[in-house]
Parts: sequence; C-alpha cells; structure tokens
Amino acid sequence: MKYGVAAFPSKKLQDIANSYRKRYDPHYELITPHITLKDEFEANGAEIKDIVEEMAKIAKRHTPFKLHATRVSSFSPVTNTLYFKVEPVQEILELHEDLHSDFFGGMPDYSFVPHITIAQKLSDSEHSDIFGQLKMAGIDHEETIDRIHLLYKLDDGSWTVYDTFRLTGDEQ
Amino acid sequence: MKYGVAAFPSKKLQDIANSYRKRYDPHYELITPHITLKDEFEANGAEIKDIVEEMAKIAKRHTPFKLHATRVSSFSPVTNTLYFKVEPVQEILELHEDLHSDFFGGMPDYSFVPHITIAQKLSDSEHSDIFGQLKMAGIDHEETIDRIHLLYKLDDGSWTVYDTFRLTGDEQ
Repeated sequence: MKYGVAAFPSKKLQDIANSYRKRYDPHYELITPHITLKDEFEANGAEIKDIVEEMAKIAKRHTPFKLHATRVSSFSPVTNTLYFKVEPVQEILELHEDLHSDFFGGMPDYSFVPHITIAQKLSDSEHSDIFGQLKMAGIDHEETIDRIHLLYKLDDGSWTVYDTFRLTGDEQ
Repeated sequence: MKYGVAAFPSKKLQDIANSYRKRYDPHYELITPHITLKDEFEANGAEIKDIVEEMAKIAKRHTPFKLHATRVSSFSPVTNTLYFKVEPVQEILELHEDLHSDFFGGMPDYSFVPHITIAQKLSDSEHSDIFGQLKMAGIDHEETIDRIHLLYKLDDGSWTVYDTFRLTGDEQ
C-alpha cells in the first residue's frame, strides 16, 4: 500500500489555498491543502506498524513549529507548479530529516522545499498567466503546526488519514 | 467551525465504495468513504479542546469493533441515498451513544443506522435503477475498525482530519 506523511494547515489557510486549487489544481479532489513531509512510499502491514512506532518517537522529539507562508512561487522550469512558499525554518527541516532517516531509506535525491501546492499541471501559457496573477495577490500567513499525519492512498488517488501524531517535544 | 466524527474503513472497502461513489455520489470529492459516528456540529477553539479530551477518554473505554458490511440498502423514501449497511453491533452503538452524551448535547432525533454511503442525491428513476443494480451486486465484507477521527469542514465542503483516536479499551 502507498503511504505518505503530511501536515494540514489551519482551516483559514486551507480555504485560501482551495480558492486557487479549485480552479488550477487537478489534485484538488484527492486531498485537502497540505505540506508534504514525506512523499509517497510503499509499505506492507508489518512495515507500517514499525513506521507508526517510529513516527510516534519522532513526534515526541519535535515541538510544534511555525508555518509562515511568505509568497507565491513556482517550480518552473522543472514543473509548472505554483505554491505558497513556506519558510524553511529549522524545526521543519529537522522534522523532514527525521522522516528520511536510514530507517526510512534515507534522504531523497532532491532538496526539500516546504510548500503548499495551489496550482499544477498547467500549460506553459497558463503557468505564466496565472503565476503573474497569484504573485501579485501574494500570501503572508503565519500559524503554528502542532501535528502531522500518516496517510494512505486509495486506488482513485485520494488520500485517507491513517494516524495523527502530535508534536509534543516530550522527549527532546 | 464545523466538526464531525467518522471512522474510515480499510483501503479495500473504501476502494469498493468509491467504485460506486465516483459515479453516483456528488460528495465523492469531499471526503473518502466513511461511517459517520457524529454528524456535523459547531464548536469554537475552546470547546474543541474539551471535545478532544472527551474523545480521548471515550477511545480508552472502547475496544476495536467488527465492521460487517452486509448488503446494499436505501434510505428511500426519506432520501434517495444508497449505502452499504453496516451491522449494528453493540460496540458501534455504544460508541455512537458515548459520542452523543449530555456533554455532546445528547442523542440525535433520528435513530442511528451505521452505514457507508455509496450514492446520494439521485433522482427517483436513477434511484430505482441503480438500487436494483447495486442490490444485485451486493456486499459482504468484514473487517476491524480500531480508530476514529475528528474532522473539520472547509468552506468548499471538504473534510480534513484534525485528530485520530485509537480504540484501545485501556480503561474499560
């Protein structure tokens, strides 16, 4: 089964993101607005038990972190994806690193850019048009994220939350 | 903000439900297949803290329960909604009751019919046509539910999981 790890921002920030996603993101229906902390990975029933245990340990080592969405940015020319850039504070980078320890198979090949996707799979002309508009509209929103979720993927590509882990910092 | 409580069945049962929902349920995009344990209710930030505490207590009093989807049924003539009927075992009835204690404002006016919706908002002719087909196809699926989720509703009607509670039975 396919799993992933994400944090969901507050209703307020999700509503803002969705006001764009509903028009510009074909994944709008598959999951509510989120920050991906660990991309899709495969695990079986036995493995996921260990992963849940490991995530519980990780959540105890991390405290809630500040999510500061600072501006609209683009992954172009790699992909025509627009997103709310999330300030890469130390806490979120360390959380991402712990979710890519040797236990989890190590770090990904690409560098981690914390973000909330608001548009994707745009044509080149759509991309330049919409990026211009959204960059002008901008974003400047700050809040606290105090939990992360382990999700699994259904056959239709949608995601269901399997478990929730509070960032308590109990065992820092 | 609007909250609700639901249990998500396994990927297998969700995939089966979605094979119907994608065609027959306009709420398909808003939430993955689920059993509603507590309908939409309003709570503010202070109230939701107490509710989370209360739900944590409830989860400790309840053990995982058997979900047995036994057949396709309809809420007609009340609404043209089709669903997988879930056997109303004692454990799920008691869990529902605990989620409707005086703390939560008491029991709803209607009786609780545990179910997973697979089609809704059908016209009368669609309803009778599709009900005939799905009744023939039927369902007979059994599994264990070991957790419930507290969700909140976004402005577009979609639901995000806020917290997960494992039914541990630690304090039965």
